[in-house]
Amino acid sequence: MDNKAKTLINICQAAGQLAEQYFREQDRLVIDQKGHQDFVSQADRNVELLIREKLQETFPDDAIVGEEHSPAPGTSGFTWVIDPIDGTTNFINGIPAWTVVIAGVCEGKTQIGIIHDPCNEETFLAELGKGAWLNGKPLEIKDQRQLSDGTVGVGYSNRVDSRGILRLVTALTDEGAMFYRNASGALSLAYVAAERLLGYSEEHMNAWDCLAGQLIVSEAGGRVEDQNADAMIRDGGRVVVGLPQVYDRLLEISVTAFAAEH
Amino acid sequence: MDNKAKTLINICQAAGQLAEQYFREQDRLVIDQKGHQDFVSQADRNVELLIREKLQETFPDDAIVGEEHSPAPGTSGFTWVIDPIDGTTNFINGIPAWTVVIAGVCEGKTQIGIIHDPCNEETFLAELGKGAWLNGKPLEIKDQRQLSDGTVGVGYSNRVDSRGILRLVTALTDEGAMFYRNASGALSLAYVAAERLLGYSEEHMNAWDCLAGQLIVSEAGGRVEDQNADAMIRDGGRVVVGLPQVYDRLLEISVTAFAAEH
Repeated sequence: MDNKAKTLINICQAAGQLAEQYFREQDRLVIDQKGHQDFVSQADRNVELLIREKLQETFPDDAIVGEEHSPAPGTSGFTWVIDPIDGTTNFINGIPAWTVVIAGVCEGKTQIGIIHDPCNEETFLAELGKGAWLNGKPLEIKDQRQLSDGTVGVGYSNRVDSRGILRLVTALTDEGAMFYRNASGALSLAYVAAERLLGYSEEHMNAWDCLAGQLIVSEAGGRVEDQNADAMIRDGGRVVVGLPQVYDRLLEISVTAFAAEH
Repeated sequence: MDNKAKTLINICQAAGQLAEQYFREQDRLVIDQKGHQDFVSQADRNVELLIREKLQETFPDDAIVGEEHSPAPGTSGFTWVIDPIDGTTNFINGIPAWTVVIAGVCEGKTQIGIIHDPCNEETFLAELGKGAWLNGKPLEIKDQRQLSDGTVGVGYSNRVDSRGILRLVTALTDEGAMFYRNASGALSLAYVAAERLLGYSEEHMNAWDCLAGQLIVSEAGGRVEDQNADAMIRDGGRVVVGLPQVYDRLLEISVTAFAAEH
């Protein structure tokens, strides 16, 4: 593991600690709905600020794109893409399934990605061409189960019409697969790399939610619909990943499910 | 909190520790698919045996019904209903969302129920007429959100046709609600009591999966479709629970979604 990876792990763990303080604290505070939303937005923004400060300290020439603050330009050609709290709805609702996500992008490709789950102390990491790890242990996909024997993660947001995901879950159950929706896209992608899910499909994700997870799946030996990372930063897009033996069929099902919208 | 509750918490925590040892160990073992299933079945059976032994030690006159072993008759009229590992698929797949569940039933009513999540160290408990608690802190439902502002848990198993859950998630998204499926029914029920989900609906659950959760929701101030606990032990049945302001509509949607099957 090189220095960049070690630095990134340290940053994510510091960010995770701060986020977890907010997560535990909201339970003790008596706040109304509006106040609660503001509290969580503040958590989101402050965790992103912590990550930005630490990244800028270590990599002053790199650009930064985050969900909560405006992009910071750089000169190195390397861009850090941050989601301070992925799975915000879980975070708000008190469900311990949310993550801190950072991806590093250069020349249209994700070079490094990290997904850190503070509540369960799990850190998923990958570096392009070097491999993927969970808490330092290599992730190597070997599971041979078919769609009919397993579970596929699905996601949706209010950015898209819900008919896409309804067609997707219908097609999955037609194949004999179970579906799973834990409301954290990044965590679900990490779970595919760890063979906890056979695949994941979502009609539209933003770059900060998906780039790290796509690299982790790919480096663990899974398959990922190939996209240009720069285009994803600009527009977001469809995300389909899977274990090798289910990927083609999952992509086919997903394309059909999501295409009928247009 | 009375002695029965304290005893139950101790039993669940011991069972949770044993289950978690198996959960962490399966990751270190190299076992094929068939061997893996056997390993998990062994975990399930041994955790249930531990619970049975401890219950019989403390309450020798009570009957015991569990998922994994044959029923043990009693003379007191009180029956313990055990699910040693609820969310077995998560357990097998390495997803830290599974629970140890015990309910105590007398005269057709659940008297006490406990759902213990070892990975997240959360213990949900309720006693009939006395209240519900999470890690000793009272659970009191106050959330006023409507279906259109929140998330509803859904469940299904291969005991039922998948068309029921597909109609359910379609109806939920038509209402503007998000759906959530974390593959542990008991944990989802506990999450309703803690206002983490607005409700939960499943076409058919077994008694060991649902009795404890239904009591916890009800004692926290939520609404629960009323069923005779003895009949549930015999046949299982539909489970619908929700925060007061969404319950009627969720029940209506669920009845329609599941009824069309027949």
